[in-house]
Amino acid sequence: MRQNSWQSRFYTIRSNKMFELLVISIIIFSALVIGAKTYEIPEEVSHLITVLDWGITLFFLTEITIRFLAEENKKNFFKSGWNIFDTLIVVVSVIPIDNTDMALIGRLIRIFRVLRMVSIIPELRLLLNSLLKALPQLGYVLLLMFIIFYIYAAIGSTFFHDINKELWRDIAVSMLTLFRVMTFEDWTDVMYETMEVYPLSWAYFLSFIFFTAFAFLNMIIGIVVNVLEDERQKDRKKAREEKGEPTLMALQQQLDDIKQLLLKQEK
Amino acid sequence: MRQNSWQSRFYTIRSNKMFELLVISIIIFSALVIGAKTYEIPEEVSHLITVLDWGITLFFLTEITIRFLAEENKKNFFKSGWNIFDTLIVVVSVIPIDNTDMALIGRLIRIFRVLRMVSIIPELRLLLNSLLKALPQLGYVLLLMFIIFYIYAAIGSTFFHDINKELWRDIAVSMLTLFRVMTFEDWTDVMYETMEVYPLSWAYFLSFIFFTAFAFLNMIIGIVVNVLEDERQKDRKKAREEKGEPTLMALQQQLDDIKQLLLKQEK
Amino acid sequence: MRQNSWQSRFYTIRSNKMFELLVISIIIFSALVIGAKTYEIPEEVSHLITVLDWGITLFFLTEITIRFLAEENKKNFFKSGWNIFDTLIVVVSVIPIDNTDMALIGRLIRIFRVLRMVSIIPELRLLLNSLLKALPQLGYVLLLMFIIFYIYAAIGSTFFHDINKELWRDIAVSMLTLFRVMTFEDWTDVMYETMEVYPLSWAYFLSFIFFTAFAFLNMIIGIVVNVLEDERQKDRKKAREEKGEPTLMALQQQLDDIKQLLLKQEK
Amino acid sequence: MRQNSWQSRFYTIRSNKMFELLVISIIIFSALVIGAKTYEIPEEVSHLITVLDWGITLFFLTEITIRFLAEENKKNFFKSGWNIFDTLIVVVSVIPIDNTDMALIGRLIRIFRVLRMVSIIPELRLLLNSLLKALPQLGYVLLLMFIIFYIYAAIGSTFFHDINKELWRDIAVSMLTLFRVMTFEDWTDVMYETMEVYPLSWAYFLSFIFFTAFAFLNMIIGIVVNVLEDERQKDRKKAREEKGEPTLMALQQQLDDIKQLLLKQEK
Repeated sequence: MRQNSWQSRFYTIRSNKMFELLVISIIIFSALVIGAKTYEIPEEVSHLITVLDWGITLFFLTEITIRFLAEENKKNFFKSGWNIFDTLIVVVSVIPIDNTDMALIGRLIRIFRVLRMVSIIPELRLLLNSLLKALPQLGYVLLLMFIIFYIYAAIGSTFFHDINKELWRDIAVSMLTLFRVMTFEDWTDVMYETMEVYPLSWAYFLSFIFFTAFAFLNMIIGIVVNVLEDERQKDRKKAREEKGEPTLMALQQQLDDIKQLLLKQEK
Repeated sequence: MRQNSWQSRFYTIRSNKMFELLVISIIIFSALVIGAKTYEIPEEVSHLITVLDWGITLFFLTEITIRFLAEENKKNFFKSGWNIFDTLIVVVSVIPIDNTDMALIGRLIRIFRVLRMVSIIPELRLLLNSLLKALPQLGYVLLLMFIIFYIYAAIGSTFFHDINKELWRDIAVSMLTLFRVMTFEDWTDVMYETMEVYPLSWAYFLSFIFFTAFAFLNMIIGIVVNVLEDERQKDRKKAREEKGEPTLMALQQQLDDIKQLLLKQEK
Repeated sequence: MRQNSWQSRFYTIRSNKMFELLVISIIIFSALVIGAKTYEIPEEVSHLITVLDWGITLFFLTEITIRFLAEENKKNFFKSGWNIFDTLIVVVSVIPIDNTDMALIGRLIRIFRVLRMVSIIPELRLLLNSLLKALPQLGYVLLLMFIIFYIYAAIGSTFFHDINKELWRDIAVSMLTLFRVMTFEDWTDVMYETMEVYPLSWAYFLSFIFFTAFAFLNMIIGIVVNVLEDERQKDRKKAREEKGEPTLMALQQQLDDIKQLLLKQEK
Repeated sequence: MRQNSWQSRFYTIRSNKMFELLVISIIIFSALVIGAKTYEIPEEVSHLITVLDWGITLFFLTEITIRFLAEENKKNFFKSGWNIFDTLIVVVSVIPIDNTDMALIGRLIRIFRVLRMVSIIPELRLLLNSLLKALPQLGYVLLLMFIIFYIYAAIGSTFFHDINKELWRDIAVSMLTLFRVMTFEDWTDVMYETMEVYPLSWAYFLSFIFFTAFAFLNMIIGIVVNVLEDERQKDRKKAREEKGEPTLMALQQQLDDIKQLLLKQEK
């Protein structure tokens, strides 16, 4: 009984609007501290930042503890991906790091604290979820695009290997070069270079641009159509439910009833 | 009584189509004068332009006064954002400026007179309003994008700080560099430079491009879906109202009436 | 009577499918001749081309004459913009030109003969018409964009005039520079240059990019919405007409009739 | 009878899920081998790869034979474009090649084996089919765009021929330059160069960019509209069929019946 009252007390804290605002402010403050660290700062400020950093870590530790204790069923806490993400970010930044290599990773993890913004603001969480939901849809288009890239990179590194080693050394480097061509970034420089050896190599680049542009177009259309279909289905459902409009089915049923009544009368 | 007649007289002037055309011509003329000032011009023409400038200021002052006096309820005049904007632009350009620093601001304000074009042509006002209305919608996507930028800029200025100070000096400069990468402007130069130190840094740039492209796509789809939904709702309403079509609800009501009549007959 | 038979004879020729194919082939051939002229060619081939050129001109003259004579009401011929365009292209290329300046214009007009492809193939004519029909729709957005360009160009040539005369000499050159910035073509070079004098000038460029991107987005959405609305209206009409489906209105009318009959019976 | 049992045995193999997975793995493995060949590899690995290559060819030969023998009606096998493509790829890579020129082609064909991925995974085949189905739709837009390119290239190589031979030598090179301008790749460099001779040549480039952007926009809208229309038609059909909803037509028929009954009663 007593534990339950503790849990409900933590629940009250967690659900408090002020508490949420405090957490958001601390996250923003932590982002500012991360930003400040990238500037060249005098030693004393650097010390202050280290102190602030530990303060923020402590605060996040407290916050995650409160949210854990507020959960009625402790198992449910770790069912939410966002809770796991929050806990990981906080726990890892508590581990003391001395080694310089690890120090960099420590800094990285502090940077990822900014992502807690997404886990705290529901609208952003929704946005990210909708982005993730769209990913599998894109899977096959991305696979097709990868195949196009792979074939062109294989051709490219076979023929252009000796023209420019920097760009066409092997299939991996060639794929990076092709990605650059796809973004139109100085792609003509790449093309003019190969055209000096193979005058017809413009066909290679132009066909590649066409194929990727086409696949890209296909992808966008696919998403748009999918989104619109979703919208339309929601729309249709809502329109009917909200207005309580009878279906044509119901109207026909009623007409049948009337007909039966009339036929009965006739007899 | 006499004042009222004055007001109505000004109202007649303001509502006059010719008056509106005159105002538009003067705005266009003022835009041309602003444009002319950017050319290297002989002294006498420069003098003429200064005179013209004061003439335009005087005309705008008169116009805004007429529009103010034409308003029946003076308080309503300042309820419209466009009126406040117009008054500000005109009043500020009357203030005599001698200081050179202020002279620049004076020139800037004269340039913003061109924006009066928007405040005078209703179609442009409508267009701008619809742009502003779309802004809050985009708010959360822009916030998400800012978070992506912030995290990547923090990582970038941590790791690439010593590679190129011009591009990765601190978090603010890094964000500008990332914006440049997003627009594909010489982004491979930035990448090749970092790849010499961190051969795997292509993953940093490619993932950044994917994330921003994805968020951007999401934004466009969000807007399109929103706009289409609005359209469809208007469409549905109009279709029904214009043709005076009865709802299925009304048809069912009528069928019920008929049924009741038949049932009464039966008894 | 006799003239009428002549006219119908020409009409037969004009409507002949073979004649149309012949005209298309000659246009393609004329395009090839124009293309050939851009290569460095030996003198005799050049002579041949001049002869071919006159042959093509003669053929086009004959063709336009046939099409003119085939028209029953001669006035209608010049009511079609395409006929006027065709006639102009053909008539102008008949005028003998000796002056070298005019010779260039003569070559230009020969190039525009390729556009006759559009005037002859109905599908292309349809496509171009739909492009032209979309233009007035875009008018106000283009005006708004022009105002944005004008204001930014005025600010740019005021402040950056002394930094780079090539890019910011006057308002016209500044607008060209801004167009370049809009296409992201080496826009950071332009920005970095101004940032050395005005460190905050990145705000000028970023805000410009945002405004134009926003206006551009608005334009695209405007067109898409418009096109979709058109489609939906056509769709709705067709759906109803093709299936001969009664409107809900008609159903209600019928229900009213039934009700009246029942009420009459009751009396 | 015996042959039939053979055929059905091959059919069982072909339809086996494990067999399909094996084929996919071999294709992926073959892709990796192709990729490995682009790296600089020691001789013994190179030997191993040659052996693996022959192994893969043998496997593909076996597989295609099984699929051919599994077909009940041998003629149907060659009716599928994908089967012909697979057979071609496999048969050609069996032909022994000694000549060095042919060796390159041999390598190319080995690269195209990766495309067998598309022929084996049904989702990719579907995607590619939908891409191909969209092509004829785009035909006329592409023709219009080609005409725009041709006219501008003719004008460009006429006027700019002597300014930069690399870019404007003849109509073909000019078209490549214009494609570069369309992708905004260093297009201002091209323009600034011509503006030194013809100060008004910015109009040439800007109008070209506007025309192509416009045609491109038109193309996208065309595809979107087409796709949406398809979707809507499917949607409407499904909605009606699934719910078994009566048409308004049927309702009217029923109302007519009722009216007739009532009129009969009246008599």
